[in-house]
Amino acid sequence: MKPLENVAIVGVGLIGASIGLALRERKLAKRVVGIGRRQSSLRVARQMGAVDTTTINLARGVADSSLIFVCTPVGQIAEHVRQVAEHCPEGSLITDVGSTKQVIVESVDGKLPRGCRFLGGHPIAGGERSGPAYARADLFEGRITVLTPTKNTRAEDFDTLSDLWARLGAVVVRMSPEEHDQALAITSHLPHLVASALAGMMPEHLLRFVGTGFLDTTRIAAGSPELWRDIFLHNRTNLQEALRLFQAKLAQFAQALAKNDAQTIQALLEEGKRHRDALAG
Amino acid sequence: MKPLENVAIVGVGLIGASIGLALRERKLAKRVVGIGRRQSSLRVARQMGAVDTTTINLARGVADSSLIFVCTPVGQIAEHVRQVAEHCPEGSLITDVGSTKQVIVESVDGKLPRGCRFLGGHPIAGGERSGPAYARADLFEGRITVLTPTKNTRAEDFDTLSDLWARLGAVVVRMSPEEHDQALAITSHLPHLVASALAGMMPEHLLRFVGTGFLDTTRIAAGSPELWRDIFLHNRTNLQEALRLFQAKLAQFAQALAKNDAQTIQALLEEGKRHRDALAG
Repeated sequence: MKPLENVAIVGVGLIGASIGLALRERKLAKRVVGIGRRQSSLRVARQMGAVDTTTINLARGVADSSLIFVCTPVGQIAEHVRQVAEHCPEGSLITDVGSTKQVIVESVDGKLPRGCRFLGGHPIAGGERSGPAYARADLFEGRITVLTPTKNTRAEDFDTLSDLWARLGAVVVRMSPEEHDQALAITSHLPHLVASALAGMMPEHLLRFVGTGFLDTTRIAAGSPELWRDIFLHNRTNLQEALRLFQAKLAQFAQALAKNDAQTIQALLEEGKRHRDALAG
Repeated sequence: MKPLENVAIVGVGLIGASIGLALRERKLAKRVVGIGRRQSSLRVARQMGAVDTTTINLARGVADSSLIFVCTPVGQIAEHVRQVAEHCPEGSLITDVGSTKQVIVESVDGKLPRGCRFLGGHPIAGGERSGPAYARADLFEGRITVLTPTKNTRAEDFDTLSDLWARLGAVVVRMSPEEHDQALAITSHLPHLVASALAGMMPEHLLRFVGTGFLDTTRIAAGSPELWRDIFLHNRTNLQEALRLFQAKLAQFAQALAKNDAQTIQALLEEGKRHRDALAG
């Protein structure tokens, strides 16, 4: 693969800035343009070497880019994709990194003007910290990036993005937007809901008695409420189903406790341990 | 406080070995005896400098100790306390570090032979790793240790342990066994149940799609099923009540999702974030 010409990144938070860093360190693009709303984030991204140039003017920032990553919160992605398509070169490829796919893909897939195409993506990477200051060129190394082509997707666009994510170190997995959202409802959106509910129910006078277990279990509850509200609303139906499955598992614990059933309690704890032990970290 | 004479530690896991290390580094005891069932753990504890001598013979190990820490799993503590009381010097003080207090205290408080007394304790410290190899002399630094005196407790016994835990770096909090178990049901035992349920319901084919959020939220599910089964059974009634409160909070999320109620979803997420942000780590 020869280096891409100009790549634009709309939204230089943790993921956007990490894509920029990785593109530049691996010399995969001639120039990386960072586009944002706040000069402060753009300055950090530039100082870190995540982008070559920056602008708060989206139209100007994408004017020369044939590949554009939209890395803004899920509630804003579709609108940003439409704005990009108005101002980028004709026939450009636009992608995203949003944690939900179905609502976004349905909003823009096959509906963009000027020959532009959208192909949805989601790198399953990140961490508890946000912002460009925590960006890393190896953030995607060995992590899955899901791409969600549709019947409107051109094979060469899928190949372009698939190759690029592989060069950023990711393991590319192809799924439909629906499959993606079903899976992530259980692996990511439900855990956030659970952590938030557990933190939220804690009476303040007991906060001093928490140990490392509570801290780990509720860590992601510190995430942005606006961002996660939009993720929950985008993936509402799948999240409701995941929550029902979780409530059913809790009911098994509740019943075993009510019956003082040591054997079932142990079996449930063993099931949880077996699944957790299958994962590192 | 002059140095204690001989201190015995029954069970040299993470907590027991950390007590030994801290006692020895701070020169708070003349000799620390480590008692365990497995030579391998005892050897690690000895090599780390957590204890001066070790034995697998409980009767011999406690024969010269006027203060004995029982640091075994909660399901075994009461029995070990009784065994210690049979073999230690008359009038010795026995304490523990168990994660539950009511069942243990009721089993032995005021019921020990030979003038021995029991005073329950629980240092809220530790981590995801267990075993003496992870012991640290500063494990209790700035952490709460709860002591649970009863009407049978002598004031000088409370003072002895309170002073000692303060010298180990802990912030000592006095609670009744009932208050302790109510608080810990919410701050520790419920989070374990929740983490285990979340890990347990995860279909194996989706494990590859988990991110750091799921890893954090389920980390404690890797703990010992036997240990946590006994904690759950000891604190069954309080844990049932804590679980009901958690289920009620989940029902608020479920209802807000069913109504597509963005405002309530955001308010719930903000509540969780506010509580979590109040804690460091």
